[in-house]
Amino acid sequence: MIDYKKILGDYTPDYEESLRLKCIENGIIKKLNDIISSRNIDAEPVSVGSYSKGTNLKNSDLDIFIVFSKKYPKNEMESIGLSLGHYILENGVEKYAEHPYVSGYIENVKIDIVPAYKIEPGQRIVSTVDRTPLHTKYVIENTDENLRNDIRLLKIFMKANNVYGSEVSKAGFSGYLCEILVINLKSFDAVIKYFSKLKGRLIIPENSWKKFQEPVVIVDPVDPTRNAGAAVSLENLSRMKIASKLFLLNKNESFFYPREISPRYHKRGTCIYIITLKRPDIIDDIIYPQVFRFERQIFNIADRYGFMPVSSEINVDNNIEILIELQRDVLPDVSKHAGPPVDSDESINFINVWKDRALRGPYIERDRLYVDSETRIKSFYDALNLELEKMDIGKNLNKLKDGIKIIKYNNSHFNVVKKFFSKDIFH
Amino acid sequence: MIDYKKILGDYTPDYEESLRLKCIENGIIKKLNDIISSRNIDAEPVSVGSYSKGTNLKNSDLDIFIVFSKKYPKNEMESIGLSLGHYILENGVEKYAEHPYVSGYIENVKIDIVPAYKIEPGQRIVSTVDRTPLHTKYVIENTDENLRNDIRLLKIFMKANNVYGSEVSKAGFSGYLCEILVINLKSFDAVIKYFSKLKGRLIIPENSWKKFQEPVVIVDPVDPTRNAGAAVSLENLSRMKIASKLFLLNKNESFFYPREISPRYHKRGTCIYIITLKRPDIIDDIIYPQVFRFERQIFNIADRYGFMPVSSEINVDNNIEILIELQRDVLPDVSKHAGPPVDSDESINFINVWKDRALRGPYIERDRLYVDSETRIKSFYDALNLELEKMDIGKNLNKLKDGIKIIKYNNSHFNVVKKFFSKDIFH
Repeated sequence: MIDYKKILGDYTPDYEESLRLKCIENGIIKKLNDIISSRNIDAEPVSVGSYSKGTNLKNSDLDIFIVFSKKYPKNEMESIGLSLGHYILENGVEKYAEHPYVSGYIENVKIDIVPAYKIEPGQRIVSTVDRTPLHTKYVIENTDENLRNDIRLLKIFMKANNVYGSEVSKAGFSGYLCEILVINLKSFDAVIKYFSKLKGRLIIPENSWKKFQEPVVIVDPVDPTRNAGAAVSLENLSRMKIASKLFLLNKNESFFYPREISPRYHKRGTCIYIITLKRPDIIDDIIYPQVFRFERQIFNIADRYGFMPVSSEINVDNNIEILIELQRDVLPDVSKHAGPPVDSDESINFINVWKDRALRGPYIERDRLYVDSETRIKSFYDALNLELEKMDIGKNLNKLKDGIKIIKYNNSHFNVVKKFFSKDIFH
Repeated sequence: MIDYKKILGDYTPDYEESLRLKCIENGIIKKLNDIISSRNIDAEPVSVGSYSKGTNLKNSDLDIFIVFSKKYPKNEMESIGLSLGHYILENGVEKYAEHPYVSGYIENVKIDIVPAYKIEPGQRIVSTVDRTPLHTKYVIENTDENLRNDIRLLKIFMKANNVYGSEVSKAGFSGYLCEILVINLKSFDAVIKYFSKLKGRLIIPENSWKKFQEPVVIVDPVDPTRNAGAAVSLENLSRMKIASKLFLLNKNESFFYPREISPRYHKRGTCIYIITLKRPDIIDDIIYPQVFRFERQIFNIADRYGFMPVSSEINVDNNIEILIELQRDVLPDVSKHAGPPVDSDESINFINVWKDRALRGPYIERDRLYVDSETRIKSFYDALNLELEKMDIGKNLNKLKDGIKIIKYNNSHFNVVKKFFSKDIFH
């Protein structure tokens, strides 16, 4: 049998770390309470996030929300919140999710101080962060020590199998989804069994299949109008199903530890192109959707021109790299074009237009006219360059069009190539 | 205006030819009548075919049928018929359509002497030839000099535009179809107008669209259970529609004279293969369907393996030549295979089978497993050779499999290549 205790031991904060977090948390809350009451602000500091819920893994952040009365207008709430954040975090920097917060470090622990409005379950939120304290409350009220450890196990399992993380770049399961899943299904084992047997979409509760269209539908217990699983990709749902099936067939600790995948380079006899540009200084949440869209656009262009794309991959770090694999990068000199059906009013026009220009034809096959004509654009390089000019590749990438390089891969070093040759079930 | 008289003059037998045919016909009929009455045979010689109907063009054959009483059993009818044929045609040879007949020459005119059973309209036939005397009677009774000339014009037009001839190798309109069309639509001009406006299938009479499924449905006036247009291909119907449209837009005599199409050779950047074998000593009606089927099989193999066939062409003379044009004749070293959906019971099995053999993967895209593996058969030559071994290419061609050559075209001389580069609307 698998030793869950050992696994938890490897991932859960030890006594020393827990104590340090507790001290830091207490210190911040106390400091905030003091200044709030001295300045007579109608707000309250609340510890949220995995640490406060007892579902944190090693090296977790601390998330402290300052929950304001709704009587404050938005800009006032934000400016007071930010000033309180800077008061706590001397070297803190302002960041923006849906609204601004202050992020910094105390004793090497990352701390976010986030202003939000106080709401009750069912009340309309102003910003998504307003819901976070309710999430914390929900998890604390619905878990005991056992369930919290099972939530940790699920997070560990999902991390190891590369389906964890709600960031756009991951499109995986968030910590909160792990919490809801374990609370609903009662244990880690039950969650694994559930995924291993699941066909089609994941829908909790089952009667909400019509309300949301995403592959993963997990209705937020504190807000029934929200699908907490909306960000999970179909791929990651599929990966989690396969990981669960494999785990149940071979209950092995390795499923809880990340596997190093070394790229297996090999000759493919295809044409691999890398399209690269410098990454603009913009957060993942904004840049990734543009890169995904750009990848899809390149794939579609390759397909439309007949270069027969096989696969594609992206990598975003300091550079944006998009890899596209084609079955060919040069088209035949001649292409066969379907013209109108002979019955069409256009048929005679088609014949007149082509009869002196065609390399062969117009000719008839079955009930349709065809013509063989010279291929206008023969190379993928030319096709992509031509299309790039008129393409909208997203607000932030459009500005960088001139810096795009199209490189035919030939053992050169690109991170996206390493990623491409490392691809397996969980990568 | 177009001078139909001149065109008819160019194609219709002159006085001398007509006289010669008349004399030969009378001579044969008289000789047959004499021997039939002297031997007391219950049969009657009948002149059939285009000459007897007055719809013949220059250099037509003579078809003389010997119409037997149904009291004769088949083999007896045939043996008497053949002996009479040999009696008339000293150097005649026996041939077989659905049943045997004698073919020979008198004064350079080709003569067929064909035994058949006498039937009345509506009676069941034994062999398709039994219907021929009824066709002759129908045409004679329903045409006058004007209509006969219009029938001749239609034949000339169809010949010039390459849609005439009911042989399997042509799949065009027969002389009898020309006769029915003109009789039904009342003139050559009306037939052309009809084709130019026709959408979809040709169906005469219109209410018989459900009874027959072929592209051309022309119910035989002497046998409502038979579609006289069954042999016409969709291509030839399409050609006739286009020819009629073009003719009406530009009423030019050139539509009545065959056009010499010189092949326009050009670089195509594709891979053209010629598959050749000796033509077995077998009639067109039997060999063509096998060649067409073989052509289709080769096309499908090329498609299935991913060689992306574009076009194909056949030529049958002393050799059978099948041309197939491919977008490529070598596949990438690696192929991407779709495995089962992750929800399938087969998914884990697929992973186990492939995990150590795959060049890349198994991996997940959306809700399905994929794997990149080494392409087993990379060249079209190897693929076709492999498939040829197990393929059924028809009763007569199967015997010649060992003699099949697969040649990559490279300016070598093949008739099928000439045909391929001559292809246009009417070829």
